[in-house]
Amino acid sequence: MAGVPGGGGSVTIHLLPATPATVHWGYFDPGLEPVLTVASGDLVQIEALTHHAGDAPDLLMDEGIERVFTEVQDRGPGPHLLTGPIAVAGARPGDVLQVDILAADPRLRYGSNLAGHWGQLYADFGKERVTIYELDLAAMQGRALFGFDWTTTPVVDMAGTIVEPGTVAREPALEGVVVPLRPHFGTMGVAPAAPGRHSSVPPGDHGGNVDNWRIGAGARMIYPVQVAGALLSIGDPHVSQGDGEVSGTALEASLNGLLRLTVRRDLDIRVPVLETPTELLVHGFGDHLDEAMRVATRRTLDLLGTQYGLTRDDAYSFTSVAVDFSVTQVVDGRQGIHARIDKRCFPFWRQ
Amino acid sequence: MAGVPGGGGSVTIHLLPATPATVHWGYFDPGLEPVLTVASGDLVQIEALTHHAGDAPDLLMDEGIERVFTEVQDRGPGPHLLTGPIAVAGARPGDVLQVDILAADPRLRYGSNLAGHWGQLYADFGKERVTIYELDLAAMQGRALFGFDWTTTPVVDMAGTIVEPGTVAREPALEGVVVPLRPHFGTMGVAPAAPGRHSSVPPGDHGGNVDNWRIGAGARMIYPVQVAGALLSIGDPHVSQGDGEVSGTALEASLNGLLRLTVRRDLDIRVPVLETPTELLVHGFGDHLDEAMRVATRRTLDLLGTQYGLTRDDAYSFTSVAVDFSVTQVVDGRQGIHARIDKRCFPFWRQ
Repeated sequence: MAGVPGGGGSVTIHLLPATPATVHWGYFDPGLEPVLTVASGDLVQIEALTHHAGDAPDLLMDEGIERVFTEVQDRGPGPHLLTGPIAVAGARPGDVLQVDILAADPRLRYGSNLAGHWGQLYADFGKERVTIYELDLAAMQGRALFGFDWTTTPVVDMAGTIVEPGTVAREPALEGVVVPLRPHFGTMGVAPAAPGRHSSVPPGDHGGNVDNWRIGAGARMIYPVQVAGALLSIGDPHVSQGDGEVSGTALEASLNGLLRLTVRRDLDIRVPVLETPTELLVHGFGDHLDEAMRVATRRTLDLLGTQYGLTRDDAYSFTSVAVDFSVTQVVDGRQGIHARIDKRCFPFWRQ
Repeated sequence: MAGVPGGGGSVTIHLLPATPATVHWGYFDPGLEPVLTVASGDLVQIEALTHHAGDAPDLLMDEGIERVFTEVQDRGPGPHLLTGPIAVAGARPGDVLQVDILAADPRLRYGSNLAGHWGQLYADFGKERVTIYELDLAAMQGRALFGFDWTTTPVVDMAGTIVEPGTVAREPALEGVVVPLRPHFGTMGVAPAAPGRHSSVPPGDHGGNVDNWRIGAGARMIYPVQVAGALLSIGDPHVSQGDGEVSGTALEASLNGLLRLTVRRDLDIRVPVLETPTELLVHGFGDHLDEAMRVATRRTLDLLGTQYGLTRDDAYSFTSVAVDFSVTQVVDGRQGIHARIDKRCFPFWRQ
């Protein structure tokens, strides 16, 4: 998809800390006033806070996070704390917003995984449970510190609930086991066109809660702009996750991001597309996995046509032989499947 | 899972060419007489023939393959040509059969992908189409040579149909595009316990048509033995495939394999498990993807318990944070999802 900004000179970097004035909690809304307006090509240094900081506030909170948890009481219907929205001057419906993630660095050295009642196997467990992990940022590994069954409320249904240390028995967990870290933004998207509050839970063509762990440093997201200014919001930061996110959450921890936002009018793309150095990924969503899978396949054929000029026949054969489909998540209401297209299959000297 | 054969000396290598006397076409059957009996630990040099050799017989057939296509007329209900069964002396129900794939080398330099009427998007296309690929075994890449719509029969429903060159218009396909090669056995499994012929199409706990492209050289498969002697059959060779296999087939081409067969009684495993140098993979099957996914998650928790001693609580958190779920295939009647567990998360010095 190309698109490297040219020339020397200077670039504007905006700072967007997460404060009670710059976050919104649980929703996308095209009616929100932007907290920052940038020009296409500008950089934004942004803070994204985990809504799970209350799971172990002694480890997952600092003063800035505490202030947001204390002062922002307008929450819901979703759980995700989002920073923004950011308006990009000149962006209009029909454009795409390109978000280059230049950095995604953990803010603190701990993260939380919650097995929630919306998790895939909740019926098997009949309880919710938190596992807190410590992060080794040099080795890019995590390890569990302790776990506890959720007892602070009957179920986890109030975003930002604080579990005071001492009110739960912190038990040893996953001793000697390590997990790879994959810092990424679970929720990032533009404002949907339809007015009003949209729950932050289901992902969609505005992006949102896509929960693909590859949306981290070095990756680029492409969103179809739905409203003037695009109105990008970012949150639900994760330091790791497996494809599937089966327990209901990832390894949730606050991240600081450095992003470059670019409006593009040269791309014939109408769905959220992820680009890594070696792959193009396209996302399908559906009420069940079979539907999400069918949507993902059709979108793969579309993308192979628009990006690489493949006929439908050729694209279908190529997809069966060379494209890998994975389960993005099964816990966000709308199920997600993503397809991974290896860009190295299309050398530019092929014609 | 360990299990390296010890000591020096010699090892027995059996040769099992694919001939009319050593293949069966379209089914597993516990009543089949073994075509070879080996001792645990023996090696087998085996030929596996693609049932798609007739798609371009001038490229995909040699004399040995032609003889099998000509002489073996007892075919079905599935399409897969299988070599075997191989009995492993002493194997009995309750054991597991470990199959180490030491080599999987293409027999010829061409492969076929068929977009079949059982493909995921057949309704979108309303036709079946063959795409023939050439294989570059030095670069481990393939590229399409030509494609043609299927017209030899109303639909592709007779295994081994021969499409005579000259009876179809071979059109250019996927010009300049390459695909990575991933040689593997699409169908490999032990005989199911229930008597009679079992279609080779649906995968199951005997293995069979699992269609995971990682079942290639360097990988190990673990099958729960269902009948005395295990009765392993191998076929449906592929030289590449994406996770999903959406068009209905992979890149189908005959392979020569070198296998080591070992009976093990030290493993508490009752489902087909795949091991690569860095991963343990477990397979879930179901009538739809959501069911396959739930089965795959439960089996992941089981495996994390039996192999690494994790509690259910710990395994669930670990799986959400670190295990990747992919779509194995959506075209074999029973849908498949596999989970990939990174073995490096469990250093042996952890306790």
